[in-house]
Amino acid sequence: MTRDLTITEVRLTPILVADPPLLNTQGVHQPYTPRLIVEVVTADGVTGLGETYGDTKYLEPARSFAEKLVGRQVSDLNGLFVLADEVAVDGSQVSGQVDVGGLRGVQTADKLRLSVVSAFEVACLDALGKALGLPVHALLGGKVRDAVEYSAYLFYKWADHPAGVACEKDDWGAAVDPAGVVEQARRFKERYGFTSFKLKGGVFPPEEEIAAVRALAQAFPGHPLRLDPNGAWSVATSLKVADELGDVLEYLEDPALGTAAMAEVAAGLKGAARSASDNGSGGRRAGVRLATNMCVTTFAEIEEAFTKGAVQVVLSDHHYWGGLRNTRELAAICRTFGVEVSMHSNTHLGISLAAMTHVASTVPDLHHACDSHYPWQSEDVLTERLVFENGVVRVSDAPGLGVELDRDRLEFLHRRWLDDDGTLRDRDDAAAMRVADPEWVTPAVPRW
Amino acid sequence: MTRDLTITEVRLTPILVADPPLLNTQGVHQPYTPRLIVEVVTADGVTGLGETYGDTKYLEPARSFAEKLVGRQVSDLNGLFVLADEVAVDGSQVSGQVDVGGLRGVQTADKLRLSVVSAFEVACLDALGKALGLPVHALLGGKVRDAVEYSAYLFYKWADHPAGVACEKDDWGAAVDPAGVVEQARRFKERYGFTSFKLKGGVFPPEEEIAAVRALAQAFPGHPLRLDPNGAWSVATSLKVADELGDVLEYLEDPALGTAAMAEVAAGLKGAARSASDNGSGGRRAGVRLATNMCVTTFAEIEEAFTKGAVQVVLSDHHYWGGLRNTRELAAICRTFGVEVSMHSNTHLGISLAAMTHVASTVPDLHHACDSHYPWQSEDVLTERLVFENGVVRVSDAPGLGVELDRDRLEFLHRRWLDDDGTLRDRDDAAAMRVADPEWVTPAVPRW
Repeated sequence: MTRDLTITEVRLTPILVADPPLLNTQGVHQPYTPRLIVEVVTADGVTGLGETYGDTKYLEPARSFAEKLVGRQVSDLNGLFVLADEVAVDGSQVSGQVDVGGLRGVQTADKLRLSVVSAFEVACLDALGKALGLPVHALLGGKVRDAVEYSAYLFYKWADHPAGVACEKDDWGAAVDPAGVVEQARRFKERYGFTSFKLKGGVFPPEEEIAAVRALAQAFPGHPLRLDPNGAWSVATSLKVADELGDVLEYLEDPALGTAAMAEVAAGLKGAARSASDNGSGGRRAGVRLATNMCVTTFAEIEEAFTKGAVQVVLSDHHYWGGLRNTRELAAICRTFGVEVSMHSNTHLGISLAAMTHVASTVPDLHHACDSHYPWQSEDVLTERLVFENGVVRVSDAPGLGVELDRDRLEFLHRRWLDDDGTLRDRDDAAAMRVADPEWVTPAVPRW
Repeated sequence: MTRDLTITEVRLTPILVADPPLLNTQGVHQPYTPRLIVEVVTADGVTGLGETYGDTKYLEPARSFAEKLVGRQVSDLNGLFVLADEVAVDGSQVSGQVDVGGLRGVQTADKLRLSVVSAFEVACLDALGKALGLPVHALLGGKVRDAVEYSAYLFYKWADHPAGVACEKDDWGAAVDPAGVVEQARRFKERYGFTSFKLKGGVFPPEEEIAAVRALAQAFPGHPLRLDPNGAWSVATSLKVADELGDVLEYLEDPALGTAAMAEVAAGLKGAARSASDNGSGGRRAGVRLATNMCVTTFAEIEEAFTKGAVQVVLSDHHYWGGLRNTRELAAICRTFGVEVSMHSNTHLGISLAAMTHVASTVPDLHHACDSHYPWQSEDVLTERLVFENGVVRVSDAPGLGVELDRDRLEFLHRRWLDDDGTLRDRDDAAAMRVADPEWVTPAVPRW
């Protein structure tokens, strides 16, 4: 068998893709959001695709990484992490604090590097799979399910971006109260068949979000529900919400910010469970599980969180963790420590959804439907969009990821990035909010 | 690309291979020891090789497993563990107690199954690599080093098996005192270039073994030394030995039996380290690290051992842990919790040494030279033996494991197994000892 797996070219294409006016505790999504599309080309002319964050701070390390990659084998996946350590990261871009724009937990150079590596790892796996005639899931040891379940990712949302702002129009309408949230959920269910629902919270005072979740519970009895205020609440508020919603929540995601606060919430829930078993009291909060994609986002954060019992579910994100193989390692660690796993999603396109689906299909004990923003993204760089049916994405058995790049679309979206004056090249939900409300400042935490 | 990865045939061949009279706390190695050779054949006629324990209790589950494997893809590695759960294990073979014969830690059905799965996983990886034209290390993400370092595995040893016993003669001579151990180490170094030395202890009273290690330290100053009594000592004895040898030990391996006792030893060492930093005392024991291949041998044992700080080094063994991919997951868990990794070895042949070398080449932070019994095995089933030079085994870049089966040798060693009346088909170091000393009983633990 003669096959040359040497990487001869790496192409990086930053793009801007349409994003609806979705609200979160930091502000609102801008009308366009940056992504970076990675292409890895082998000597045999096979092209592998990857995708990651496209903000400016990711682009420079990505360029440096791309240069180092040429001449290496696409099969040399462990070597990517050796390379990553050599990639310089601008220290001013990594505060060591919680990322104000991206709701991504603490920012560190390591995490920024891994977010870059992830796109190259996925692109190498795609190329390797195509070269070998194997789907990516087979390169990860093979799928253990034929379809991966996703949940509806509900957002508080304006009907439109602020007047006068260039944007693509969406047909979802507004959702700023319980009725709007239920209507949005109903459309998600109708269009895609989702049966579990996650509401991005931290936008309105807790009592309003409690009312929205209770309205969902009433409209969709028995369906798994999740609420995620992105760490906007105090420990006391978190416990109060758990009291109010404990009977209907599948889990409560990042109610408070950071491992210390999450551990306090977890201790409060555990205490409630103890008194419930002792004397039948303890309220609804007993048994509420805490999930995170903010306090456990790197391997370095695991030990403290797990030994403190701060979280019961980790929402993995292959972009944060450095790719699909690291995601499997995270799942193995969680399994070993009795912590459940599911998947987090930030704004992403079809390449990443395909990657998520491949890796999710190989994780034996995936406990919850995965999150995905994909239904909110009306634009993509693929010749065919991935499809949610009955709440699942079918796992592709085609070589590689099983997706194909639409070069015209890529060029169109890259042109938009080139034409931008710089205001949209770095996602900034607070800046977007200030267009509507010039007085807006990023809320201090805990907000409530 | 048309390639059929379907498994069409699985061959299981139990064999008996020569073993020298090596002593341990349970007794002495029998003159022949059982191994099981696994061959997985694909529709394209590619054959993959694996190897594991050959005792009777492994054979029945292996047969059951082999039947289920036919018709599946060699790339379906995650599916092996789904299959494993369906394989029945004779409950009488798994006591839930420490294995009296094999020094393998606690015996459970799960561990027995994984020891069986490991051989099939390696055979599937070998076949997959051959079919794709890729070395096994590339299927594990690629090597990060070109050679893997091994240590000399020193044993107290008789010159010969008891008189009248059928056996193969070896040329190593006796080693029953410090001078004999040093002489053995010198030959190991001369023949193979090993620079670190491990002594299998628990055979003689601790003071004699302390004297042997000090003699090694004097003969080979600055070389890493390890002592492994297989849990034969009390906590107090363990701490005393650490006091005596702390200045020359790379680590102390399983001085006491089980996580609780190991945690007590670790606490004693930590206390010594504290007083050393407080007032300069604390003795030599301060800083001694504890390694194990007995109290952490399954994923289920990790959480307790790590949270109690019972061990600082885990000696992985791909046979115990269910194969090469699980070994990588173990390494990821250890990395995440700041525990070091190296590799354990039980009696094994070249297929397993090749497998160990492939996986070890892919683990980024392999902290210590790996153990291997291979130099003690004069017989093998390969056309060419693997070679230790300058203390390392070079990583093969040939497709699959890079080894070839010698069918005549396999048949010869299988014939020996067929001809055996049953006395050697199950390894029993105590029975072997009773041939020389009819009064011998397996010592109670702690022995000293």
